[in-house]
Amino acid sequence: MTVTNPVANLQTLIRCASVTPAEGGALAALTDMLLPLGFKVERMTASEPGTPDIENLYARLGTEGPHLMFAGHTDVVPVGDAAAWRHPPFAAEIADGELFGRGAVDMKGGIACFVAAVASHIEKHGAPTGSISFLITGDEEGPAINGTVKLLQWAAERGERWDASVVGEPTNPDQLGDMIKIGRRGSISGFITVHGVQGHAAYPHLADNPVRSIVKLTEALLHPPFDAGTDNFQPSNLEVTTIDVGNAATNVIPAKATAAFNIRFNDAWTVETLKAEILARLDAAAADQTLRPGREPTKYDVVWSERPSQVFLTRNNALIASLSSAIENVTGRTPKLSTTGGTSDARYIKDYCPVVEFGLVGQTMHMVDERVALSDLGTLTEIYETFIQRWFANADL
Amino acid sequence: MTVTNPVANLQTLIRCASVTPAEGGALAALTDMLLPLGFKVERMTASEPGTPDIENLYARLGTEGPHLMFAGHTDVVPVGDAAAWRHPPFAAEIADGELFGRGAVDMKGGIACFVAAVASHIEKHGAPTGSISFLITGDEEGPAINGTVKLLQWAAERGERWDASVVGEPTNPDQLGDMIKIGRRGSISGFITVHGVQGHAAYPHLADNPVRSIVKLTEALLHPPFDAGTDNFQPSNLEVTTIDVGNAATNVIPAKATAAFNIRFNDAWTVETLKAEILARLDAAAADQTLRPGREPTKYDVVWSERPSQVFLTRNNALIASLSSAIENVTGRTPKLSTTGGTSDARYIKDYCPVVEFGLVGQTMHMVDERVALSDLGTLTEIYETFIQRWFANADL
Ligand SMILES: [Zn+2]
Ligand SMILES: [Zn+2]
Repeated sequence: MTVTNPVANLQTLIRCASVTPAEGGALAALTDMLLPLGFKVERMTASEPGTPDIENLYARLGTEGPHLMFAGHTDVVPVGDAAAWRHPPFAAEIADGELFGRGAVDMKGGIACFVAAVASHIEKHGAPTGSISFLITGDEEGPAINGTVKLLQWAAERGERWDASVVGEPTNPDQLGDMIKIGRRGSISGFITVHGVQGHAAYPHLADNPVRSIVKLTEALLHPPFDAGTDNFQPSNLEVTTIDVGNAATNVIPAKATAAFNIRFNDAWTVETLKAEILARLDAAAADQTLRPGREPTKYDVVWSERPSQVFLTRNNALIASLSSAIENVTGRTPKLSTTGGTSDARYIKDYCPVVEFGLVGQTMHMVDERVALSDLGTLTEIYETFIQRWFANADL
Repeated sequence: MTVTNPVANLQTLIRCASVTPAEGGALAALTDMLLPLGFKVERMTASEPGTPDIENLYARLGTEGPHLMFAGHTDVVPVGDAAAWRHPPFAAEIADGELFGRGAVDMKGGIACFVAAVASHIEKHGAPTGSISFLITGDEEGPAINGTVKLLQWAAERGERWDASVVGEPTNPDQLGDMIKIGRRGSISGFITVHGVQGHAAYPHLADNPVRSIVKLTEALLHPPFDAGTDNFQPSNLEVTTIDVGNAATNVIPAKATAAFNIRFNDAWTVETLKAEILARLDAAAADQTLRPGREPTKYDVVWSERPSQVFLTRNNALIASLSSAIENVTGRTPKLSTTGGTSDARYIKDYCPVVEFGLVGQTMHMVDERVALSDLGTLTEIYETFIQRWFANADL
């Protein structure tokens, strides 16, 4: 078997049923692809009380800089209704020029192509002057506690340093070449509890209805907008994801109301400045008397989610220009440099080196009949190969 | 035993453990008090699928008009933590001039006093020229489906007609003589469901967060005030009693949000005009784009509670003046003519005859150590007796 063929690589990976947290043979299969190319492959199992153990993989070719890291995950989301698939989700069947299977685009396909690109590069030019590594987790689709974060720490503690990273997530909305992600919005979640005073609906002056307060507090988070967007980011957006009281008696004023919110924020903010803004809005709303005439300020508290994501924007031109020009060269299309969408493991990598994301077309990810065009696998491999060449040529710029 | 003693009457009634829906011997005991006075006593059991059968009582003395009806209930609320009572809740023990027991003020005490007042009147003056009746339910503290409503219908179908009614609920906030209730606010409850579109918190444009809408809709009900009050009523007041979404995932925009509200309204409104006003507010809020810029109006529906209460105000001067002057005469205090508080069974009686409410001091009702001062029982009996005398003297006015 020659690993220069991304289709064969992907079929091998899809046939490993690696639904998070199962390794499913996927990392072993990847090891079998990398060892013959000269990579030093290490497996690292991460544990944390209350979560399943997760197997991860780190592989490096070369010992010197410059050092390019490819990052990704072999774990996949559940298949949903397996009977609804046109082709079994772990069979990797090909039909009408498409390869079917869970993980085809998210993101065993990206890994398969990068392996093929490296193999092809070595075949043509020998090993690059510098290092290439694979940082592959089995915990991206799960709680992500025993995955990329710990793998990065583990490698860094062993002296690993990187100059740039590409994450192989499916970044293209419609066509290969649409979009590189050069940053991501941050994300914070918070949980509000309003403490009122229970009572009878006919005697509201003896009670303090927390629903009045939760309406005012959540409205203050929803309006006005936090910003109008920045050069590289869309406007920050907050969603109140739930409000709950759980009072079944219409003649009773409840004692407590809770709400949760999530904000996706741009580089006009940091986690710290945004929390301060949110608390200022909540305090002002708590003191507002529109819905609670003549009342003391609302008693409330906020608990923040344990792991907020900082916003980040990658400005490393050697990385962005190499990838962008490779895409243009292969596809004839100029990729949009985007910061939209949810969070990804790039948010962890950005603390170690500049990072961008580029992979396949995401349309079928997480869906029944996840699949990839065989031609896209060839094209992405070509893009990655061209990128590798250009990046090592430009890394010193 | 002479039923002219309200303390003895009340002890007898308290010792019947008539927690809704149990009759507990209370109506039997009342029958034993009324038969010797010449009342014709009838028992009526009401049934409805899904609710427990309820025993009720109707007793009449006399066959001619004018006809005065005393209305009330022998059922009581549960005792709560029986061990927390200073005196057992069904023992009717007397200590330091107070009689302890569940129902002491709400409202076996009122019944005990009215029986004593009638007995005393008969002892002094013979049976009144006209009729006195007791309309007593065992389902006031419960669902109230098999109680006063059905008992009134049942009696009316048998030809019963009344000229005035007194409900013996505890109407006095602090002292006997504080307050007569001459009307009650109406009450409507409604249940709102907002239909949104589920999605990911990072892609809000692909979703439609129903929480944004439920915040706007409920706020529109809470502000501005519905009115500033009327001559006889405090301002109408709406409470949103619950908002519920039940979404545990902070990265998910939910599909649905629900809320419930209850409004206590005055005689500026009817059930019909108020529903129209509420729907107008909700429609305006649904179309408001403050929290949902550029969106179609919110899709929502409202379900109304099955049994709204109409507001009512009693203007019958013979009734109000007789009672008010009796109170002044006995206590030296001028009672406030009030329409405050929750709903009561008077809302059903008002469809048959003018109705007012006057009874004991309500401070300990529904609480542990519910109790009544023995002196209050004497005073209320005297007030009722004076009232009976004056009402029959004034009934033709
Ligand atoms: Zn992925
Ligand atoms: Zn009562």
